[in-house]
Amino acid sequence: MIQSSYYTPVQSELSEVDNLMRMQADDYHPDLQKALDIILSSGGKRIRAAITLLTGKMLGADRSLNITLAAAIELLHTATLVHDDLIDGALLRRGTPTLNSQWSPGATVLTGDFLFARAAKLAADTNNTEVIRIFSETLGIIVNGELAQLFSRRFLADRKNYQDRIYAKTASLFETCGRTAAILSEADHEKVEYMAKFGKAIGISFQIIDDILDFKGEQATLGKPVGSDLRQGLITLPALYYLQDHPQDPNVAALISEKCLEDEKQTKELISAIINSDSISKAYDEAVFHVEEAINFLSMQPKDIYRDSLEGLARYIVNRNI
Amino acid sequence: MIQSSYYTPVQSELSEVDNLMRMQADDYHPDLQKALDIILSSGGKRIRAAITLLTGKMLGADRSLNITLAAAIELLHTATLVHDDLIDGALLRRGTPTLNSQWSPGATVLTGDFLFARAAKLAADTNNTEVIRIFSETLGIIVNGELAQLFSRRFLADRKNYQDRIYAKTASLFETCGRTAAILSEADHEKVEYMAKFGKAIGISFQIIDDILDFKGEQATLGKPVGSDLRQGLITLPALYYLQDHPQDPNVAALISEKCLEDEKQTKELISAIINSDSISKAYDEAVFHVEEAINFLSMQPKDIYRDSLEGLARYIVNRNI
Repeated sequence: MIQSSYYTPVQSELSEVDNLMRMQADDYHPDLQKALDIILSSGGKRIRAAITLLTGKMLGADRSLNITLAAAIELLHTATLVHDDLIDGALLRRGTPTLNSQWSPGATVLTGDFLFARAAKLAADTNNTEVIRIFSETLGIIVNGELAQLFSRRFLADRKNYQDRIYAKTASLFETCGRTAAILSEADHEKVEYMAKFGKAIGISFQIIDDILDFKGEQATLGKPVGSDLRQGLITLPALYYLQDHPQDPNVAALISEKCLEDEKQTKELISAIINSDSISKAYDEAVFHVEEAINFLSMQPKDIYRDSLEGLARYIVNRNI
Repeated sequence: MIQSSYYTPVQSELSEVDNLMRMQADDYHPDLQKALDIILSSGGKRIRAAITLLTGKMLGADRSLNITLAAAIELLHTATLVHDDLIDGALLRRGTPTLNSQWSPGATVLTGDFLFARAAKLAADTNNTEVIRIFSETLGIIVNGELAQLFSRRFLADRKNYQDRIYAKTASLFETCGRTAAILSEADHEKVEYMAKFGKAIGISFQIIDDILDFKGEQATLGKPVGSDLRQGLITLPALYYLQDHPQDPNVAALISEKCLEDEKQTKELISAIINSDSISKAYDEAVFHVEEAINFLSMQPKDIYRDSLEGLARYIVNRNI
């Protein structure tokens, strides 16, 4: 975990979240315990847990239930990654070998299922049926989004489609962090909605930054080639800006008319062109806009260390590794 | 649905269960709706839903919540089948092409995940946190059992292992039908436990009969070759009895010492020998024993049409297609 200063007010809770997640395979098959250990040790940032915990602390949630909720959300996220990596055939995540690179497809599917089951069990342990309902609805949204992406055609250059995609993929779960932590704190309806909007806005900027890093990051850090989204036919925000601003670029013209890129040379040229254009900074400005929006949603809340940390965390999102 | 006479007292509820399950993909990707339709039209017996509904009716559950619970359980079962068929590479289920025979592995994984999500949502809609907790725990048990089977060695002739396996695979969810329907009915602790034991006992006999049918059924009805469990290295109850009673059979001796069967000739011989031995009837007697046990757990309940139907359903289990 890197952003220690923003995590400080919930440091002890975050350790308990980690322990609680690791305990979920106790009394089950030893290989499941091993798998869970491998998956959880690969060094996730636990940002969803941190947002949940900070929101709950700020609004006065019961400490133990708040930890349970944060563990449920983080484990749900983990479960989706296990199946995602399997479907994408990804061999590395955060520089660590994925489960599917070591286990059979069947065992990987079942391990993901097991994590879904245990995440649902943790959600149930919050004893709040509204929280549980939102939790399961969010899983439906995430999975539906992945399926839609799987079924949709490649090189679809459409801003609405991009927005829907990053909402389903990322922002919906961030939104659920804010919303469910507020519900668990018995906050009034208005506060619940503000915290949901806060979560959604930082989720959107988080994903935009991820999409920028796919162009700007180092291959070693990314664990995949630069421009891998575009290589897979996925048009993200930097590419959208570039396509809009450079219709005269022959590679763009080819992509738009043929709905594909012909060869590796074209692909490399287009990735380079995007990296060296102002499309990256335009996408970045959009991420910053959503962070400011998020911070605005926080401003209705009295200033305290938790609000400060949430604000710091939101700002950090647009500064990580860029 | 075939056992119509036992289903009669909950016929209208069963139709509503079906509708509720089909509605779960509304507002989601059209291909998901198509998939759900394919899966639900393949003609499951809805026996888990029937047990849940009859138990709830007998104990006075709220009609609408009882339907929601039955749909949650039946959809959970459906979701596990989608992933099972993918992992086993099964091309047919009940004579109908499986989803994985028509869709990519990735799309099949995600469709299963989506059904888990919607089953969890339906469970949440019961508004009963105890029911939801048991529901998610049961999913953990089922998946853990499948993983254990995947990781365990083939041709393991061990009665304890068989019991654990059929509990995880089948009896745990039947147990959950009885238990959660009773909890939803606000039955006292003793009644809840009796209905859980009822469910578990008929779940055990249901699976034993399935394991007998794997030997005795027609290939056309089974949608797989006779003796397919044994062909996959899975020792079920009829085989366990045969192995125990015929240590002198050279194929048994080979299986026990080598922990495998050498060739198709040996396999066919052993399957024939099991079919023609009294191992089938011994397994059958054991299934009948568990049905009687189940009916015994019902006897604490005042006699009415729902109890009669549950009893009839339990007896039907050991008579289907044999």
